[in-house]
Amino acid sequence: MSQPAYVAVDWGTSSFRLWLVDRSGDILGERRSQEGMIAAGKLGFPAVLQSHLDAVGAANGLPVIVCGMAGARQGWVEAGYVDTPAPLASILKQAVAVPGQDRDIRILPGIAQRDPRAPDVMRGEETQLLGVLGMDAAGDALVCMPGTHSKWVKANGATVERFATFMTGELFDVISRETILSHAVAGADEETECEAFQSAVTRAFETPANAANLLLQVRSGQLLYGGTPSSAREKISGTLIGLELAGGLAGGAPRAAITLVASGRLQTLYQLAFDTVAVPVRSIGAEDAVRRGLSMAAQSIWNV
Amino acid sequence: MSQPAYVAVDWGTSSFRLWLVDRSGDILGERRSQEGMIAAGKLGFPAVLQSHLDAVGAANGLPVIVCGMAGARQGWVEAGYVDTPAPLASILKQAVAVPGQDRDIRILPGIAQRDPRAPDVMRGEETQLLGVLGMDAAGDALVCMPGTHSKWVKANGATVERFATFMTGELFDVISRETILSHAVAGADEETECEAFQSAVTRAFETPANAANLLLQVRSGQLLYGGTPSSAREKISGTLIGLELAGGLAGGAPRAAITLVASGRLQTLYQLAFDTVAVPVRSIGAEDAVRRGLSMAAQSIWNV
Repeated sequence: MSQPAYVAVDWGTSSFRLWLVDRSGDILGERRSQEGMIAAGKLGFPAVLQSHLDAVGAANGLPVIVCGMAGARQGWVEAGYVDTPAPLASILKQAVAVPGQDRDIRILPGIAQRDPRAPDVMRGEETQLLGVLGMDAAGDALVCMPGTHSKWVKANGATVERFATFMTGELFDVISRETILSHAVAGADEETECEAFQSAVTRAFETPANAANLLLQVRSGQLLYGGTPSSAREKISGTLIGLELAGGLAGGAPRAAITLVASGRLQTLYQLAFDTVAVPVRSIGAEDAVRRGLSMAAQSIWNV
Repeated sequence: MSQPAYVAVDWGTSSFRLWLVDRSGDILGERRSQEGMIAAGKLGFPAVLQSHLDAVGAANGLPVIVCGMAGARQGWVEAGYVDTPAPLASILKQAVAVPGQDRDIRILPGIAQRDPRAPDVMRGEETQLLGVLGMDAAGDALVCMPGTHSKWVKANGATVERFATFMTGELFDVISRETILSHAVAGADEETECEAFQSAVTRAFETPANAANLLLQVRSGQLLYGGTPSSAREKISGTLIGLELAGGLAGGAPRAAITLVASGRLQTLYQLAFDTVAVPVRSIGAEDAVRRGLSMAAQSIWNV
């Protein structure tokens, strides 16, 4: 059996994922928990990490590479930002060593766009981008990374030129839970109503200025014509994703295919949304991307 | 002293306003409370109304004209809808008498747009429109009525041709209270930061597709460049109002001036927003409008 070479950790705001990895990049052990930055801030980052290292039997000297919110100011150790235009290689060079630890633990920095007309930050997605683009990428790329705060990234070669964050996922959450539309979606099941979703995507994509009206039509439509809670939920989701696509694709249709970095339900919805507006995408799993990025960082830093 | 001729009531979702009016339309008494449809649904509509009638000393036989959510299905007595294209005169003709009362109490219907591509309803604003346009209006009009759910109404003569509701006010509330942007606005004071507001209006008006990105820039901008909570609040407000104006004005700049029906802070903000995008408006107070509409209804129904 192969030997562990390093430990890779994706430490987000509300989730923690750890992999024990061998020299060839194969996974020997894995942990997942809800001990993200918020929970770990209370429990203590070293204790949370150590408990998971113990659980996978990681030897004392094994190095650990970390990306995500553990490097935020409110996180474990602040890992700062690489400013745009940001060569992905700089992410690796600016990894911050956690002081006072028995083992070598490094946290990767985020990327900041210090443009007063479009200020933006990312933390965690830069590692996914590293996994998706690699350090030898050539040509232009447009990468869509859906989530609570979706990122749209324009890269040239292995350099992040610009990016924009859309609060699509968070808007969906508060609009379906906290507004009058909560009555329309109450009791929705998990099934995807493709037709309702696609029609909403098309309308928001074509007339993004009407977004706040299209959202309320979900309620008025149900009042006047009926309709299921699931269909209402898909309309809200489709409206917000259609609005995001209108913004993300505003620079015109890209020459190459867009790369979609997503998993699970988000992958399904965004794939369907891109299909609806007839924009081809290449889809990569979000977890594959971050694991690959962390592996590239470990290889570069420790030559493992 | 002049004699009371009728009582006018604007009964909204969360507010109740009552006026004792004489034959010439002058106000002899006035009441305001938070006993809107939601509260009155629990307390009982007849009891709430009677307590305010007693407070202004309204005689037993005095008739009462009511508009607003008291006529909703969840209200006192359902007053239905007039369908678009809706002549404002039909509002008066379809007023519903409340059964089993000692005095004559009529509730005005709302307006429904039964268009599967743009389903919409209003209840209360039709009475403001009556007050603003009258029954002898000529020509085209575009009326903007800001609120929790802003209405944009296209009228031809005294007929409501089409309208659209934007959930601008409700979006502002949940976004500033329930999302990550709540951190950016915490501690905001009441002062209007015109520059931040206007700049946000302009950007959302010009690139509505970026709305969900512009909102998040409020947070990223504060993180990278600092800025006051009040300025953050004005940017959220400006972004959402700019988005609404982009949608409401999408049909092209109107030939005549737009009529803005608003009061207080909303009047200030929307006036400033229209100024920012260089669209002239004629401004009318929302309360004046509804009182005038109720008076026209009372005159028409009882010839008072």
